[in-house]
Amino acid sequence: MEQLLRNIIATIEPVTNSLEQKVQAHLDNLTKPRGSLGRLEEFAARYIAITGEDPPQIPKKAIMVFAGDHGITEEGVSAFPKDVTHQMVYNFIEGGAGINVLARHAGADVHVIDIGVEHDFRDVEGLVARKVDYGTANMAKGAAMPRIQAIAAIMAGIELAEEAAGSGARLLGTGEMGIGNTTPASAMTSVLCNRNPEDVTGRGTGIGDDDYRKKIGLIRQAIELNHPDPEDPIDVLAKVGGYEIAGICGLILGAALHKTPVVTDGFISTAGAITAKALCPHVTDYLFAAHQSVEQGHQIQMEYLGLKPMLNLDLRLGEGTGAALAMTLIDAGIKIYNEMATFEKASVAPGDEQI
Amino acid sequence: MEQLLRNIIATIEPVTNSLEQKVQAHLDNLTKPRGSLGRLEEFAARYIAITGEDPPQIPKKAIMVFAGDHGITEEGVSAFPKDVTHQMVYNFIEGGAGINVLARHAGADVHVIDIGVEHDFRDVEGLVARKVDYGTANMAKGAAMPRIQAIAAIMAGIELAEEAAGSGARLLGTGEMGIGNTTPASAMTSVLCNRNPEDVTGRGTGIGDDDYRKKIGLIRQAIELNHPDPEDPIDVLAKVGGYEIAGICGLILGAALHKTPVVTDGFISTAGAITAKALCPHVTDYLFAAHQSVEQGHQIQMEYLGLKPMLNLDLRLGEGTGAALAMTLIDAGIKIYNEMATFEKASVAPGDEQI
Repeated sequence: MEQLLRNIIATIEPVTNSLEQKVQAHLDNLTKPRGSLGRLEEFAARYIAITGEDPPQIPKKAIMVFAGDHGITEEGVSAFPKDVTHQMVYNFIEGGAGINVLARHAGADVHVIDIGVEHDFRDVEGLVARKVDYGTANMAKGAAMPRIQAIAAIMAGIELAEEAAGSGARLLGTGEMGIGNTTPASAMTSVLCNRNPEDVTGRGTGIGDDDYRKKIGLIRQAIELNHPDPEDPIDVLAKVGGYEIAGICGLILGAALHKTPVVTDGFISTAGAITAKALCPHVTDYLFAAHQSVEQGHQIQMEYLGLKPMLNLDLRLGEGTGAALAMTLIDAGIKIYNEMATFEKASVAPGDEQI
Repeated sequence: MEQLLRNIIATIEPVTNSLEQKVQAHLDNLTKPRGSLGRLEEFAARYIAITGEDPPQIPKKAIMVFAGDHGITEEGVSAFPKDVTHQMVYNFIEGGAGINVLARHAGADVHVIDIGVEHDFRDVEGLVARKVDYGTANMAKGAAMPRIQAIAAIMAGIELAEEAAGSGARLLGTGEMGIGNTTPASAMTSVLCNRNPEDVTGRGTGIGDDDYRKKIGLIRQAIELNHPDPEDPIDVLAKVGGYEIAGICGLILGAALHKTPVVTDGFISTAGAITAKALCPHVTDYLFAAHQSVEQGHQIQMEYLGLKPMLNLDLRLGEGTGAALAMTLIDAGIKIYNEMATFEKASVAPGDEQI
């Protein structure tokens, strides 16, 4: 399976923006000072560059929420009990969670994927069953998962991107649920971005000072014990990662493969994105970074990816909530591109602009 | 008329947030870590505090775009000719401008008000006729307008807020169009916020270095010549302001009078907001600051108002475009408040939070 993954990665192409001049000329001919709609213009141009659609349609949207459990929770790294992962999966299916509300707001479908939850869902309607295992092992005591299972989780993400693209989705969003998952996300960011654990570790859902120090200590311990190889992203994922992070990594690879833009959510999702970039640098061409997370490691992830977040609303929920909101701004950019009058059409003098 | 305005201002009350504890308890009982939806929770709480609606309905929205011309344009302070003001008014009426696109995106109505355009629109359908004068005089040579006309423009804004509230609008947005209007906005900000002109002057729609230095010189000249009294906001408005800025000032006063939240757009709109605050400090209770404008004086206005912008998208168009986008985030906050499941309802364990 690893060779198949390598082959897929090798076929991912960078975005070749052959429409760039035409798109910029159109944006500059709309009835506004050049560039005065700032990042909305950037979002439209980036969407067109990725998809090659000009004019672009308002995309069908899908947010993929990957759920997984974490063995590290037995060390007490989260303010919430582990059972909350599967309880929240039911909440997603029922439509009562934050991501459901904001996805409806954005006009996006929510797909909930059991990729590694410690719970038997049996045949729950509306749940995408892609369980690789019943959660990770405690990375403070050994590898979080076998390498083959990390690859299987990545492959599941790739397949889900393919299925979404096949069913007409043109804008994907990443989401996740996994009690304790800021801990592996911090560990992965520490290794892949070559930073000390304390630089990339925040307080997750809300832990106190003592638990925060303990969390940093556990991350350091997991890294020292497992020796993840920063040159081998799959090794990092397997040793100090999580199934939902692997799934998101795969979703991003699959989206890039199918030339589909993908909006990354917060700190956990972006741990998946940095892994995808470490495997295939071209993937950043296909990414929109939804928002600046409260988690302090997120800024370091953004620097690694070379992306600038679209929103800064002090969000730290995850689930894909920031991605849903960001999708509304991409739609706004596309509407600007499609619906605004040109100077000629509106009989407005175009001005004499010097910047 | 000035006494009538004084009486109105005296009746504006601060927001008394009697629902605060109940609202916070509800937000904390939704299936998410406390406060993890960050500013979305703040937007919902603020909206409820202002309106007293609990649960709040998704508000009917109206963006009021005030258009006026500026005598200072004869000095060459803008990259666009003055005629563009009235040309853009027609574009607004036709629905082809940026604000039309983004207001449709946000589900907001656009009201276009001729409060001071140098053009006879006659009976253009869809235009709100509130012309106080055919533009301001050149403030570099004398007062921009007579004091009585500044008051008339403020009163027009108050009446429009009243009419909007009367027709069911529960969320107002400020917008403007006026070639050259960053110049009076900078002058007013300089006087009311007690800062040097160069600290509050930007490049508007896009002027080069020489024109930028000239613009600062003209602002300094206008202030030295006219001696606007910073203790008398109407004097500042009359001597170095504009009709659209006066209208926005009035709209904000009227919104506060009718306990209606109002979203301020960028630099010009916020010049209206600081004038309203200088007249009545309570108005800031009713304001949402849509976005951080590219104009450098905007940050100083935000400090004066004590507000934190909702978005930072490098916008510098005006028209109310940022306000329209910000309205979608207020809706998102309200939907979170109304639609998310509680811990009990979703059978999710509430966790043990320490922050």
